[in-house]
Amino acid sequence: VNLVLLEPRDLQANDIAIVDDARAVHIRAVLRSSVGQTIRIGLVDGPMGAGTVREIGPDAVAIQCTWGETPPRPRVDLLLAVPRPKVLRRLWAQLAALGVGRIILTNAARVERPYFDTHVLRAEHYRPLLLEGLQQARDTRLPDVTVHRQFKVLVEDDLDALTGEAIRLVAEPEAPASIAGAIQDRATPGGRVVLAVGPEGGWNEFELRMLQAHRFVPVGLGPRTLRTDTACVALLSLVHAAHDGIAPRDSTVDDSR
Amino acid sequence: VNLVLLEPRDLQANDIAIVDDARAVHIRAVLRSSVGQTIRIGLVDGPMGAGTVREIGPDAVAIQCTWGETPPRPRVDLLLAVPRPKVLRRLWAQLAALGVGRIILTNAARVERPYFDTHVLRAEHYRPLLLEGLQQARDTRLPDVTVHRQFKVLVEDDLDALTGEAIRLVAEPEAPASIAGAIQDRATPGGRVVLAVGPEGGWNEFELRMLQAHRFVPVGLGPRTLRTDTACVALLSLVHAAHDGIAPRDSTVDDSR
Repeated sequence: VNLVLLEPRDLQANDIAIVDDARAVHIRAVLRSSVGQTIRIGLVDGPMGAGTVREIGPDAVAIQCTWGETPPRPRVDLLLAVPRPKVLRRLWAQLAALGVGRIILTNAARVERPYFDTHVLRAEHYRPLLLEGLQQARDTRLPDVTVHRQFKVLVEDDLDALTGEAIRLVAEPEAPASIAGAIQDRATPGGRVVLAVGPEGGWNEFELRMLQAHRFVPVGLGPRTLRTDTACVALLSLVHAAHDGIAPRDSTVDDSR
Repeated sequence: VNLVLLEPRDLQANDIAIVDDARAVHIRAVLRSSVGQTIRIGLVDGPMGAGTVREIGPDAVAIQCTWGETPPRPRVDLLLAVPRPKVLRRLWAQLAALGVGRIILTNAARVERPYFDTHVLRAEHYRPLLLEGLQQARDTRLPDVTVHRQFKVLVEDDLDALTGEAIRLVAEPEAPASIAGAIQDRATPGGRVVLAVGPEGGWNEFELRMLQAHRFVPVGLGPRTLRTDTACVALLSLVHAAHDGIAPRDSTVDDSR
């Protein structure tokens, strides 16, 4: 944990926050903070800040908060065919740490039906893991998560509202275009990217045609076939690296990566 | 599994291989192969090939092997401060899948002593996980793994023999140089890269100075602090992507990424 994330409900009057859960243990036992010391804090989906420890009790810690800037939302969204629960469980914190604005989970022909009926897709499960990733990476912007059971409805009807004018890329093992090339050719300052990653067996032909008909450009990652979690981390870091070369829209706002 | 890896001991006369373990189960139950069908095979640290299923018994499968080319060794080596056992266990298969020639594990000031006394560092533990990663990525080249308890001895005395003339990069959260830039400025056709990744708390100043005194160039990954496993996957895919733009030394040999 490189940042202690606070929820609006932790805040009292006068910008005092009281925490009495794992964060209190962390402040006492890992950070070994004493009264008067300052720790990095953030408000979920709000500003970063500095917290001065005011009181350390047996169960709770009181922090005086001074708020700074709100980090910009990461400029990359992920459209992901629902992976096996074991793989998705490993992914949540890593996705939040790498920085994604939205996580759009979808059905696909090669997604097995039971993958949808798992607690791994419920907010009670994934929200703490997303917060863990944000605290690791020092960010406050919680990814928006939506789950779509109908691929066709998602791509044809919902995607424009979810991702707007973003550059659309779909990872295809053998595609000749590189992520860096595809982004450099199409990027506009401040623009966003949405990256589509298929199921372990790949998108089927119908899905791939539909994605391409809706502006998704196939990009490759060389001939090595990667597990979904490895592929997501690898691809997202390539998208971020390519995108970071292009200035954000408002030059007074620092991009968070 | 996108490739069934065979060991030299599986081979009989006349290029017939007999497998009687999880691979036999995989061929029968997952690939649902029947006699006469062809599957992708590889020989550990040897050629890729095509295997024709000759016999399927209750416990064993016999495969007639036809061998093709040996993939080149991945051109990237990883120098990694030994991470927590839980993190390292997750990393083995991913590193082999991404492609690394060597995995050089080292002590560092912020590596906890007990990390060395774990089964996760023993070949019986990691070799099957490395093979799993190779079978995922369709590669045969098993990374060489060495464990070094003395950082100074490794960097001063052993590293030249292990990595030769490779470009040396050390990941430093706040370094201004990008991986792509650092590699493009220094790469030679066929050249190798060694990437150093520190412990969760970072290298200390002494270690960082020693690495820089031994030609390691600091490269950044933006302001987000990543967990070691996420960072290794992210950084290795950036190194591979940057490196793939530069032709391998022998143009008749296809680079494996």
